Amino acid sequence: MFATHGQPPAQASDGRAADRQAIGAVLRAQQSAGNRPDFDAFLEGYWHSPELTFSGSSGVARGWDGVLARYKKNYPDSAAMGQLDFSELEFRFLGPDAALVLGRWHLKRWEDYVTAETGGVFSLVWQRFPEGWKIIHDHTSAVAPAE
Amino acid sequence: MFATHGQPPAQASDGRAADRQAIGAVLRAQQSAGNRPDFDAFLEGYWHSPELTFSGSSGVARGWDGVLARYKKNYPDSAAMGQLDFSELEFRFLGPDAALVLGRWHLKRWEDYVTAETGGVFSLVWQRFPEGWKIIHDHTSAVAPAE
Repeated sequence: MFATHGQPPAQASDGRAADRQAIGAVLRAQQSAGNRPDFDAFLEGYWHSPELTFSGSSGVARGWDGVLARYKKNYPDSAAMGQLDFSELEFRFLGPDAALVLGRWHLKRWEDYVTAETGGVFSLVWQRFPEGWKIIHDHTSAVAPAE
Repeated sequence: MFATHGQPPAQASDGRAADRQAIGAVLRAQQSAGNRPDFDAFLEGYWHSPELTFSGSSGVARGWDGVLARYKKNYPDSAAMGQLDFSELEFRFLGPDAALVLGRWHLKRWEDYVTAETGGVFSLVWQRFPEGWKIIHDHTSAVAPAE
C-alpha cells in the first residue's frame, strides 16, 4: 500500500521494522477512517492532549479538540472528504521513542459531478506512548500539481 | 528577541535550558544571515547532508544543495530577501539528541517602493551532532494575514 521511496536497504536493517509497521498501521487506519469518514477514528492516531499541534496555511491548530474541529470544518460531509490516500512514506527515527515521517497525501472528491483532486505533503512527528505511537505534531501543505 | 510563548514555567525546569540556548543561537545566526543576506551562512543551521529535507507548498526539496538552491531561487537578491524575523518559538525535546521547534516567520520587503509583508509558520526538526544542533527537516508554510 505504501511506497518505499526514501528507504534504502541500509535503513531496513536499523532494527526499527516493528516501529515502522506500528506507525504504518496507524496511518492505514487513518486512511480508512478518513474514507468512511469517521473523524473520531481518524483522530485516534493523534496524541490526545491539549499540546497536540497541527500547522499549515491557516496557522497552528492546538489541542486534540482544535485539530478535530479543523478536520470537521474542512470536510463537512462525506462527499467533501472523498477518497484519501497516503503515499511515499519516509521514516526517520530520532531516538528510541520518537520519529519523523514524511509523506504525500492525495484526495479525490466529487464536486458538482466532476472529480476534483488535491494533494500535498505532510511531516508527522511521532512519539511512543504506553498505548503506542501517536502523532504529536502534523505540518501539512497543499502542493499545486506540476505544470 | 524571541517571545517565550508556549514555554510555561514547568518546561523551564526540564534541564534543557542549554539546548534551548544552543538552538536559539543557531536561529538568531540564521536570522542575521538572512538579513545580510548570506545564504551560505544561513544554511549553516541545516544538516549538511543529502538527507536534509525541506517541505512546503512546492513539495520536498532534498539535500543541502537542494535547499540552498531553493533559497537562492526564492530570494534572488538582497532587496528580495528583506527583513526577516522569527518569533513565538516553542521547543519540544523528543529525546536527548532530538527536538521539534515550532515558530513563526515574518518577512518585510520593499517592492516597487511599497512594503510587502509575508509570513507564516515553520516546524523544524533538530538533531544534535558532534558539531552541534542542526536542522534535519524544515516544513514551512505561508499563512495569509487574518482578515
